[in-house]
Amino acid sequence: MKVKAIFFDIDNTLYDSKAFAAQARRNSINAMREAGLKATEKEAYSALMKVIGKRTSNYDYHFNDMLKLLGAKPTPRMIAAGIGAYHNTKASILPFPEVTSVVLSLRDSGYKIYIASEGESLKQWDKLIRLGLDMLFHDVFVTEEVGKKKSKDFYKTILKKLGLAAGEAVMVGDSEQKDILPAQEAGMHTVLVSHNGKKKGKADYEVSDLTGLSAVMKRLG
Amino acid sequence: MKVKAIFFDIDNTLYDSKAFAAQARRNSINAMREAGLKATEKEAYSALMKVIGKRTSNYDYHFNDMLKLLGAKPTPRMIAAGIGAYHNTKASILPFPEVTSVVLSLRDSGYKIYIASEGESLKQWDKLIRLGLDMLFHDVFVTEEVGKKKSKDFYKTILKKLGLAAGEAVMVGDSEQKDILPAQEAGMHTVLVSHNGKKKGKADYEVSDLTGLSAVMKRLG
Repeated sequence: MKVKAIFFDIDNTLYDSKAFAAQARRNSINAMREAGLKATEKEAYSALMKVIGKRTSNYDYHFNDMLKLLGAKPTPRMIAAGIGAYHNTKASILPFPEVTSVVLSLRDSGYKIYIASEGESLKQWDKLIRLGLDMLFHDVFVTEEVGKKKSKDFYKTILKKLGLAAGEAVMVGDSEQKDILPAQEAGMHTVLVSHNGKKKGKADYEVSDLTGLSAVMKRLG
Repeated sequence: MKVKAIFFDIDNTLYDSKAFAAQARRNSINAMREAGLKATEKEAYSALMKVIGKRTSNYDYHFNDMLKLLGAKPTPRMIAAGIGAYHNTKASILPFPEVTSVVLSLRDSGYKIYIASEGESLKQWDKLIRLGLDMLFHDVFVTEEVGKKKSKDFYKTILKKLGLAAGEAVMVGDSEQKDILPAQEAGMHTVLVSHNGKKKGKADYEVSDLTGLSAVMKRLG
């Protein structure tokens, strides 16, 4: 069966989401220190990670809770400094350097190119726009709008919507749990992207960055 | 009585808030048009101004309502494009060119320099930080935290907090209604800044930009 469509995860597949998050936290902490927070970067980072561990990353009062943990009062000045620095960092995110040319080249070869992402629609679109990638994909599927977390069901739903057989589709992502295993259950081909080079073993193919995809597509015919 | 303290309004006094708002709206509209909105810039701008007229500027769904008015569906993609462009525009605001040097020079002359601003504390601090002015003021008073709109009472409350007599303080702003008249009722000196050069008549002094302040301060002794 001829492959017609390729689905991409966003975080840690199209850009370095882990490095961004660490940098954004450091910048926010240092902006709050400039605004008067009496704590070392290390103390504040450790307090912030405690708050994130407890509240997960979808929570509106990370900085308030962090400041309280450090015995500081969460003033509007301090909070505005932290949030501003976070947004400034977000404004400067870039895709992994190979992404744009690989996606354009796959389009040129006739493949339909889609996003299959887990999260809130508005946040995931915001990332695509800031990465300068929003115009490159034929369509974008985010779990919030599809109404299902990344699961066999999620992948089956979007394949059905596009009128594709599972064997006509490839899923590309960094997470075995979210991108590889449920896509395999749905019957799709799978490619694990592992920018740190660690092999994981479950995907049909493993690449260390998206330049490896063209070889994979040749083998898939 | 010797003047000891100078209070500044923010919007249209320290930066061109009107020009920023118009630019941010245009950029947002054009980002939404790039994301697929079928409307001219003019049609969309006019719909947006209708929504702002109805909902005021403190409302979270301007773009949703604007899209509905234009007969378009408010998709996450479109909304994210609009909000992203708005924030990008906000990230690049600058003070009027004279502001930083005038404030530093007044500090050098021994005056205490404060902000007296109407609005939400977090938003006003965000502006000061983005303008690069947040470190320049001895303290910042925003109506939300003081608990009163700009009124005789607001000015009296902050003067009391600082242990200042009204005659020891000057209020500088662009609005007769919010900056000049209530500060006069509280007994303060007043300076109207009118960047468009239109005289208004109620303030003790009128200047066309903040460079005019040093002459005013000399006359006040």
